[in-house]
Amino acid sequence: MAKKNKNPRKEAKEELKEFGSEILENIENNEPPRMVVPSRSTSNIIYDEEDRFYTLGDKKTTRTAANMRQVKKFAQTTCAADFCKDLINSEKTATLREMYYTSEGWPVGGFSSQDRSDRIVEDLESAFGLKREDLGLLPEEDGASIFGDLVVEESGMEVKATEAGRAGYTIPPTMSDVDFVDCGAERVLAVETMGMYHRLVQEEAWEDYNTLVVALKGQPARATRRFLKRANNELDLPVYLFTDGDPFGFHIAMVVISGSAKLAYINHELAVPDANFVGVTASDIEDYELPTDKLRESDIRRLKQLLDDPRYSSDFWQEEINKMLKIGKKAEQQAFSKYGLEYVVEEYLPEKLGLN
Amino acid sequence: MAKKNKNPRKEAKEELKEFGSEILENIENNEPPRMVVPSRSTSNIIYDEEDRFYTLGDKKTTRTAANMRQVKKFAQTTCAADFCKDLINSEKTATLREMYYTSEGWPVGGFSSQDRSDRIVEDLESAFGLKREDLGLLPEEDGASIFGDLVVEESGMEVKATEAGRAGYTIPPTMSDVDFVDCGAERVLAVETMGMYHRLVQEEAWEDYNTLVVALKGQPARATRRFLKRANNELDLPVYLFTDGDPFGFHIAMVVISGSAKLAYINHELAVPDANFVGVTASDIEDYELPTDKLRESDIRRLKQLLDDPRYSSDFWQEEINKMLKIGKKAEQQAFSKYGLEYVVEEYLPEKLGLN
Repeated sequence: MAKKNKNPRKEAKEELKEFGSEILENIENNEPPRMVVPSRSTSNIIYDEEDRFYTLGDKKTTRTAANMRQVKKFAQTTCAADFCKDLINSEKTATLREMYYTSEGWPVGGFSSQDRSDRIVEDLESAFGLKREDLGLLPEEDGASIFGDLVVEESGMEVKATEAGRAGYTIPPTMSDVDFVDCGAERVLAVETMGMYHRLVQEEAWEDYNTLVVALKGQPARATRRFLKRANNELDLPVYLFTDGDPFGFHIAMVVISGSAKLAYINHELAVPDANFVGVTASDIEDYELPTDKLRESDIRRLKQLLDDPRYSSDFWQEEINKMLKIGKKAEQQAFSKYGLEYVVEEYLPEKLGLN
Repeated sequence: MAKKNKNPRKEAKEELKEFGSEILENIENNEPPRMVVPSRSTSNIIYDEEDRFYTLGDKKTTRTAANMRQVKKFAQTTCAADFCKDLINSEKTATLREMYYTSEGWPVGGFSSQDRSDRIVEDLESAFGLKREDLGLLPEEDGASIFGDLVVEESGMEVKATEAGRAGYTIPPTMSDVDFVDCGAERVLAVETMGMYHRLVQEEAWEDYNTLVVALKGQPARATRRFLKRANNELDLPVYLFTDGDPFGFHIAMVVISGSAKLAYINHELAVPDANFVGVTASDIEDYELPTDKLRESDIRRLKQLLDDPRYSSDFWQEEINKMLKIGKKAEQQAFSKYGLEYVVEEYLPEKLGLN
């Protein structure tokens, strides 16, 4: 197979180069340098019914160095672009935090808070259709753990996901640098907690189901979502999401499926609209007589919001959310251990995955 | 080298067996079954000046099945011991959460909250001098990432910490199952953040310093502390701790060095009294003119508490804490990137590690 990843860092460099050339051209023509950035304000974030994820609308704003209020930010943007170019040239990466501190040494001066330097990075991402990972910028987050029949290559190192220890292969923050070399698995099963991950590895579910087991570790990092997207697209694997049966679990799954509003400018690289939810539902709570917790006030409020959210408009979600509100209870994915540690692997999941 | 770990799970099983035999003996002699548990109340937690970590004093409490108020708890303790015996026999592990849910199926009835089932586990640990990991019980926490010249074996799988991907080898929650097979590194450098971890891996500091690089990921998991302890004891490696220069960073380092009061009953297996603090100090903030944040009210309160804490009684800590209070500023480990991404690797750390 050897699914070679395109070279997104090289593409990113080209984009940055063009940005620089345009500025130079502007200056030579005695025009103020400027850049056009898609608006990321709420009014420009749209749920695309066809693509089935959040995306940006057509509104754009123009930044110009001719505007006194924008000139410092514009200069900082060019410094950030220059910083990223150096990262790409030296084949390095930096955390967003490191860039923030590095900016203290820029001729134009640093940022008053990391929020501001992060926003500049979002500008570069959305203006040029880049991912910050391709610019060499990383968050602090930890990537997912993966176990199963997969071989990847990163920085010239071939890694088998079954031979990196029982805690699995940890995906790096830069998924762009990862090439899929070989994959014998037929599906991806992503689970919310490390506890469930260890259960599936231990019970050898990865082998029995012929699946890659992925630990999302709560709300998944961007690199994790990018991994799921690429596994779905490049490896043609169906993706299944097994979360807790509560509003946060639903949210975790839905962000994988449809993307978050906040990252609307990049969801086409992250969202996995065909991913299947196999997490705990209100019906499961009843059918399996699971140990439960009472819904809190905040859970109820959140569930009611979900009812109006376009991402949850299907009959399935409407029915399950209403049922959860009616029974007033939620349950965690580990609750199946009421019936023994193996139950979730031997009964619940094969049923949900249609493996029976 | 092949430092073979003793078989702590087998030892744990022996302890549980004896616990069961004693109960049977009690019953045959028409005596109420009982168990003696060291007190974990604050008054029995002592800082041991000689061992240089927190430990339990001599106070003990006796649980007896003859006491109506204790009988259910006693019965639950035996069920938990039975559950752990099954885990050991089947060579499995379970999360504390899974045990909590499993208890719903026990004849004596389950726990009203996970707090209570966790406390039963602490009873078993402190009464029999066991670690819950050896009983097969795991927390949800993620273990540290490790990169460097180390080969380990776990569940018959040999893993090289330089060949598990750039994100490193992730230690499993059960450090007991890990054997050290080979190690060419001369030291361990444990850092607070994944950001700094990636910096050290990327700049090939692990090679230049001949060190294992360990990401603590904030407050380290027990498995991480157990790893550092074993690297120090079994591999004879000096351990260095590089944290942020703030009260939380100091606390992270000190918990590795002297253990936490909460885990006094198990610190002899976790504390690394000879570990060296190489984190950011108030003096570093001045000497390196680092970017800083103002101390918050809560930071100031916390620093004042540390001044009275026996673990911080050395001249070094007293001077640095007082100086930090005086300048009113704190700094993160990534702040060195003010001088470029490589500075921390090329200047600060070699100086602190005495590698110049």
